[in-house]
Amino acid sequence: MTKKKYTSNSALNVQKGIEQPSQVNPALSGGLKKFKKEKLSIDVLLNGILAGDRSMLSRGITLIESARSDDQEIARQLVNKCLPHSGKSIRLGITGVPGAGKSTFIEAFGIHLINLGHKVAVLAIDPSSQRSKGSILGDKTRMESLSTNPNAFIRPSASAGTLGGVARATREAVILCEAAGFDLIIIETVGVGQSETAVAQIADFFLLLMLAGGGDELQGIKRGIMEMADLIVINKADGDNLKKAELAKREYENALHLFPLLPSAWSPKVLTASALYSKGLTDIWNNIESYIELTKENNYFKENRQEQSIHILYDNIRQSLNNRFFDKPEIKQKLKFYEEQILSAQISPYQAAQSLLESYYNSTKK
Amino acid sequence: MTKKKYTSNSALNVQKGIEQPSQVNPALSGGLKKFKKEKLSIDVLLNGILAGDRSMLSRGITLIESARSDDQEIARQLVNKCLPHSGKSIRLGITGVPGAGKSTFIEAFGIHLINLGHKVAVLAIDPSSQRSKGSILGDKTRMESLSTNPNAFIRPSASAGTLGGVARATREAVILCEAAGFDLIIIETVGVGQSETAVAQIADFFLLLMLAGGGDELQGIKRGIMEMADLIVINKADGDNLKKAELAKREYENALHLFPLLPSAWSPKVLTASALYSKGLTDIWNNIESYIELTKENNYFKENRQEQSIHILYDNIRQSLNNRFFDKPEIKQKLKFYEEQILSAQISPYQAAQSLLESYYNSTKK
Repeated sequence: MTKKKYTSNSALNVQKGIEQPSQVNPALSGGLKKFKKEKLSIDVLLNGILAGDRSMLSRGITLIESARSDDQEIARQLVNKCLPHSGKSIRLGITGVPGAGKSTFIEAFGIHLINLGHKVAVLAIDPSSQRSKGSILGDKTRMESLSTNPNAFIRPSASAGTLGGVARATREAVILCEAAGFDLIIIETVGVGQSETAVAQIADFFLLLMLAGGGDELQGIKRGIMEMADLIVINKADGDNLKKAELAKREYENALHLFPLLPSAWSPKVLTASALYSKGLTDIWNNIESYIELTKENNYFKENRQEQSIHILYDNIRQSLNNRFFDKPEIKQKLKFYEEQILSAQISPYQAAQSLLESYYNSTKK
Repeated sequence: MTKKKYTSNSALNVQKGIEQPSQVNPALSGGLKKFKKEKLSIDVLLNGILAGDRSMLSRGITLIESARSDDQEIARQLVNKCLPHSGKSIRLGITGVPGAGKSTFIEAFGIHLINLGHKVAVLAIDPSSQRSKGSILGDKTRMESLSTNPNAFIRPSASAGTLGGVARATREAVILCEAAGFDLIIIETVGVGQSETAVAQIADFFLLLMLAGGGDELQGIKRGIMEMADLIVINKADGDNLKKAELAKREYENALHLFPLLPSAWSPKVLTASALYSKGLTDIWNNIESYIELTKENNYFKENRQEQSIHILYDNIRQSLNNRFFDKPEIKQKLKFYEEQILSAQISPYQAAQSLLESYYNSTKK
């Protein structure tokens, strides 16, 4: 599988999947043949995924990320067919500042979980991966032993499209992974802030990976994200770094007191770990398990997922409404024209929006 | 004028203004009378505003914030008629951490500018003002001398509606204020982060008001916003606080070095001031003037406003598309039903979105 496959515009395809149910109408000329072909490939894909076939899973996710409308229709149907088999996993969001050793940690932690009998899928939300090569998962060689493990599935971030689009694609990839029997889904992001909010819309538990003594830049990066963290892990707590890590641990513990109680009624801990030497991983997993236990007891686990579902409903609707408008060729043309008019101060954005919308609403009435 | 007038749903009205051009179609029965009535009141309002009548300006902004569709149609036309007379002011975004003394500063600075011969309008973006009483401008008594000055106009934040809605209403209020001859528009926000991004979509210059030695909470609040600031002013630099203020000044100057150069090629300064004793205001205004000079020279001033206009175009289109969908009574009903279905896990959000959109697209085809 080449990288190329990941770079299709995932911003478009999810929404299109919603937009174009009528596209494969058997009644249409040629529709019947098309429909049969798709039904077949869907069943093959579905059975492959349900059987835990990782190459079928990859193909399914590639369809989710495809910009082709027929791919999107298959993807939409595939996701719907996988939904009844999804939702049973634990979804871990993991983020960290650059240099915190995310890839090493995810690999060590993934192996640790597999040794406990879990099946681990690793996905990524990182719209910047194409530009900045920020996505650690893009660099598979750095996760050799995990990526070759039969109980692991690693998928780089769909690097094309907007954050919203990449997030939507990842959200659906989670469904396919769960249907394929993976009971632990790790969703990785770069510690830039926005992507973390997107992960919060998918994950059950949010782990923030930090470093000891990172200087002012790191303070800034971590600050906004710390409020979302269910657990802070200070990585690279080994060798000369051990003292510094313990010091940082106390600093972060103090900082955590500044935040209000989380809606989950969970009080986040700070732990140290050394992914390199696989140290501290047991404590981390125990902490995650007690979070799951608490939130399933006080029903937050379920409420959080319900909230995420409602968000998906509104998000998909908004995207579909936008795409239906902005994908219209005549709208694209007019937009270009009006933008130039606005830039040359010949029309106000208010008047431009108004006439664009008027012509659009009239055309949909026809 | 009572507070009540400000609490209409400003989230709706701007968008409706765009959505419903066809509503006042003279051809419709009774339409002609309605149309005449509105044309008249628009002319009265417009002439009043162009004459600098502050009560007419207030009434115009109240229309912008109104939820009534006929108000919205007048507001839309009024904004369009004011547009040719707008754009000539300098728009200052001012934010600050709680307790930084925003109201005292804005009052002192406003008076200072009026003494320099300017006409000053003060608006606010603060969706939280209703809940948390966060909007300093809600408490007029604290800006006595400015609010009673004939060359000043103070308008509390429209406290209802989403941030986006409040921002849109404020954006149009700026147009009316400029048409009324105010050449300095101060847009105030609470230092919570999101509102600042909204102000950046409106303002030419962004002033961040800080305090000396605020402790970790303040460090956190200021951090994200500092990157947007064109000028940081450390207020309450008086009495025992003077030394601390000078120390903070150096701290902030060091912190500013961590940020990349602004697209405006402007390097933000840190100044100290005492709004209470009207100290440092001249330096602040000089700094703002040299920013305007620089950015008009290197064309960023114009480019920034053009970018803002393009944002307004897309923002208004998206809002109109969303409102047209979510305001449909049958959609409201179905949404309620599907949300319950989702919460009781009887349908997936994907399938719910799909069938809602299908029925909507079919209905618009009729």
